[in-house]
Amino acid sequence: MRWSKLFIPTLREAPSEAEVPSHQLLLRAGYVRQLSAGIYSYLFLAQRSLNKIMNIVRREMDAIGAQEMYLPALNPAEIWQESGRWQVMGDNMFRLKDRFQRDMCLGMTHEEVMTSIARGELRSYKQLPQIWYQIQTKFRDEPRPKSGLLRVRQFLMKDSYTFDMDAAGLDVAYQKHYEAYCRIFDRCGLKYTVVEAHSGAMGGSQSHEFMVASDAGEDLIVVGEKSGYAANLEKAVSRPVPPALPDPEGDLAPEEFHTPGRKTIEEVAAFTSLPATSQIKSLVMVADGKPVLALLRGDHQLSETKLASVTGAAEARPAHPAEMRDWMGADAGSLGPVGITKMRVVADLALEGRRNMICGANKDDYHLRHVTPGEDFQAEFHDLRQVAPGDTEANTGEALKIVKSMEIGHIFKLGYKYSQSMGLRVTDEHGKEVTPIMGSYGIGIERILCGAIELFHDADGMMLPSSIAPFQVVITPVNSKDAALREASEALYKECLAMGVDALLDDRDERPGVKFKDSDLIGIPFRLTMGKKLGQGLVELYVRNGKQVTDVPVAEAAAKIKQMIG
Amino acid sequence: MRWSKLFIPTLREAPSEAEVPSHQLLLRAGYVRQLSAGIYSYLFLAQRSLNKIMNIVRREMDAIGAQEMYLPALNPAEIWQESGRWQVMGDNMFRLKDRFQRDMCLGMTHEEVMTSIARGELRSYKQLPQIWYQIQTKFRDEPRPKSGLLRVRQFLMKDSYTFDMDAAGLDVAYQKHYEAYCRIFDRCGLKYTVVEAHSGAMGGSQSHEFMVASDAGEDLIVVGEKSGYAANLEKAVSRPVPPALPDPEGDLAPEEFHTPGRKTIEEVAAFTSLPATSQIKSLVMVADGKPVLALLRGDHQLSETKLASVTGAAEARPAHPAEMRDWMGADAGSLGPVGITKMRVVADLALEGRRNMICGANKDDYHLRHVTPGEDFQAEFHDLRQVAPGDTEANTGEALKIVKSMEIGHIFKLGYKYSQSMGLRVTDEHGKEVTPIMGSYGIGIERILCGAIELFHDADGMMLPSSIAPFQVVITPVNSKDAALREASEALYKECLAMGVDALLDDRDERPGVKFKDSDLIGIPFRLTMGKKLGQGLVELYVRNGKQVTDVPVAEAAAKIKQMIG
Repeated sequence: MRWSKLFIPTLREAPSEAEVPSHQLLLRAGYVRQLSAGIYSYLFLAQRSLNKIMNIVRREMDAIGAQEMYLPALNPAEIWQESGRWQVMGDNMFRLKDRFQRDMCLGMTHEEVMTSIARGELRSYKQLPQIWYQIQTKFRDEPRPKSGLLRVRQFLMKDSYTFDMDAAGLDVAYQKHYEAYCRIFDRCGLKYTVVEAHSGAMGGSQSHEFMVASDAGEDLIVVGEKSGYAANLEKAVSRPVPPALPDPEGDLAPEEFHTPGRKTIEEVAAFTSLPATSQIKSLVMVADGKPVLALLRGDHQLSETKLASVTGAAEARPAHPAEMRDWMGADAGSLGPVGITKMRVVADLALEGRRNMICGANKDDYHLRHVTPGEDFQAEFHDLRQVAPGDTEANTGEALKIVKSMEIGHIFKLGYKYSQSMGLRVTDEHGKEVTPIMGSYGIGIERILCGAIELFHDADGMMLPSSIAPFQVVITPVNSKDAALREASEALYKECLAMGVDALLDDRDERPGVKFKDSDLIGIPFRLTMGKKLGQGLVELYVRNGKQVTDVPVAEAAAKIKQMIG
Repeated sequence: MRWSKLFIPTLREAPSEAEVPSHQLLLRAGYVRQLSAGIYSYLFLAQRSLNKIMNIVRREMDAIGAQEMYLPALNPAEIWQESGRWQVMGDNMFRLKDRFQRDMCLGMTHEEVMTSIARGELRSYKQLPQIWYQIQTKFRDEPRPKSGLLRVRQFLMKDSYTFDMDAAGLDVAYQKHYEAYCRIFDRCGLKYTVVEAHSGAMGGSQSHEFMVASDAGEDLIVVGEKSGYAANLEKAVSRPVPPALPDPEGDLAPEEFHTPGRKTIEEVAAFTSLPATSQIKSLVMVADGKPVLALLRGDHQLSETKLASVTGAAEARPAHPAEMRDWMGADAGSLGPVGITKMRVVADLALEGRRNMICGANKDDYHLRHVTPGEDFQAEFHDLRQVAPGDTEANTGEALKIVKSMEIGHIFKLGYKYSQSMGLRVTDEHGKEVTPIMGSYGIGIERILCGAIELFHDADGMMLPSSIAPFQVVITPVNSKDAALREASEALYKECLAMGVDALLDDRDERPGVKFKDSDLIGIPFRLTMGKKLGQGLVELYVRNGKQVTDVPVAEAAAKIKQMIG
């Protein structure tokens, strides 16, 4: 294609509302424009890149025997009521009424529709396994859309759903997806980490996320490079930093002491001259309406996700001040487990085996010293805490890193949640009715593009992998008015096309500086610059990522590019 | 792909709610399933066919320099308010509020979004012309969804929009689309007619529709095969059948006569023993709130579209009985133009030059005879009538046919409607601000599939053109348990794939009759049946459309198919 004919509205500066690199560059490079909060129009360059991404996704999904479908965005309320998610989705779901005042919604995901198709058509074990997928638009009414295409209200998703006779079948489907996702992200040129993810709320048994490290991301992942350990912070486990001071020895009895105005862990530590690791942090939580006292080492943070897993609650929140006073007899800052009998008490594993610690006395402005878990109070011990900086890998002791990341894919063993609630049944080999087991699997199409930009950019613009860049090479005559340069460029352009290289001819009547700046900005991986060395039969090959420049004989240039893009 | 692994839920009978062939066959052949009224899930076969159609559309749009984009389905109300269509679209538009109670809608078409992008980015004549397109989901809240994918509430559309400096530029863009559309429909294997279409309500100057003849269609088109005349009935002109009886001669004065209980044209004709062509039909209409008296020859029908064009009204409707009595002094059945002075009177051209006709007297149960248009009443003469059976082509006198058809594409010179109302301005070569002129162009993606099914089917199923069939050939061993047949089929299947033929292997353990029936139903254009003649090195080549059967050497079969699909 010829640049002079294209609509590529590049900007000198990124609009001030754009904070993360992918957002800034998508706007500056003329890839997208915002229509409304969290709703974007994809212009020519974005769509060209997304088309390449979607083709890679299709090829790899087809390769594992997945069958492409296309499901409606507009859903009747009934199927969401059946699964129970009509309520659960709350304000995140766009809802509307049709002209006959029937309740409808815009699909956030398609477990319900897929299961409704399956239950209408699948009758026998002979029809299983099935892998069904689509690439389709999802809608979510995000409360705070931001970061360009990273948190939006409308986006493209490849979502797939598997139906198997048993858990072993699901394992196979899950593994196929795991591998297909790796091939997809590899082919898209991404660097990513596969992490264990929390699967609580969905009711499933196993889940992995595919994450790209990026400060623009909203997830934290925990990574051990040597051990290969990788998990979402919500799910990650670790060996904590040892207590800063050994516990006092001996079988001492709890002893109240006055701590006037000392409420936080830090204040009590300063007051007692003992480190935070010597204290028990006591948090009163409410899990599905019931009070739970959660105990942690003073320097640790509660993982609400882990608490929800332990309690089996769909929702967990901190208690309100009035509730705390009511249940504990004191305000936050003076709470502790000793004497608490009417409430479930759960303690983090880091408290197991500790002795003679400090905690609140359930009496305002008083604390207790010499409190020993398991002796002075009873508790169930569970992993409840977030991995903290300095923690090490549970088995190898390797130092763990906590890395900000963005999710590009997610695979999920759903189990029986939808097949059961929506009544999908097939007969097995013995004629018995059984409920198939399901998996669901998603890839954010725009996330792949954003992830690539976040990973590969510099101050001048994007540096996209050639598999997903809107063009693989740009051919740039430094002076479009020079007939010799123009004709040689034209010939080289056609040669590239004939070789199957996706080439762009920068035939604009602009100064070379403008052309170079624009092609740097929009991230074309290679540039062939046709300039004064044409007389010697040479063209300049410029590699965007690294900005290396070499001279190449014009006659070999197209083949060289073809070889470099693989 | 292997049939045994695919989800192709064929049905023995079409569900009773399906009336038109494409609806029946899409359900029977397992292409689609209904999720809600007018909302369908596209299963594997439909999506595979639609993907092929979309690829053809993309290639031909790219070839005319159109740039693909992807615009949001979810639109803010503001841009529709600016264009004025927030009101105009009425109940046909799905409307909703987001979590902040802001008004939004689901896009029925994208003139507003495209124009909003253009006005934000286009500044200079140097950036024009532009052709922008997308393939995207549209939503329309149809009052009566029906006929499967023909009248739905959610569908795929290729829509494009052009921006030019002047009418001559728009002519070029329009012509490019005209030709691209012909290539697209040709490549999809359709038989179609391009007709002149009405462009009134949109305010444009020229419009063509691409129509497939089908009883399932909801349009009527007028076609002259020899002259090449083709127009939508709304727009078509013709030479009417001459009056059945010559008019009485002489300069006679209108004369009232009693017609007790005779109200319709037929009743008055029987009463007077004069044909309908001797009468003036008088219709009181209300165009944008104002009364208009429309006159036609007794046997002719009013075209409300033509009346709207003549009056420039956005809406025209028949007057209510009370309005008629109020304005005319009589009820319907006794109305006429004589003595009417306070109302605009428009008469069809077929009344021009007629003499001494019969019409209502504006007095219940009375008519007038000897009424001469232009003498006994004044009227503006315009083309107001629908073409009727028996009419002939205006220039050549050729007999015209009226054919039921379905629209698959529509091209449209929009003019300045959106660029003006939404403030799109660019500077011309002299630095002067001008308003670009626009065109809009649509193709219904599912309509292509439906059109092909309506055109090409028989009692056994679809007969799809090989360019858009989900598979081009099916290889069918008559007995999958026979190792020799199975292996030869497998080898032939792989040979086809290697040649780039999109082949399906029917590896199911089913009786040959079941396999043949299914592949006939889903419309695969060619079948290679591997049976008892394998011993002689022969395979049976079956052509779905026509059901011809020939024996072909196995070694030549793949090449033969490759050649037949072109």
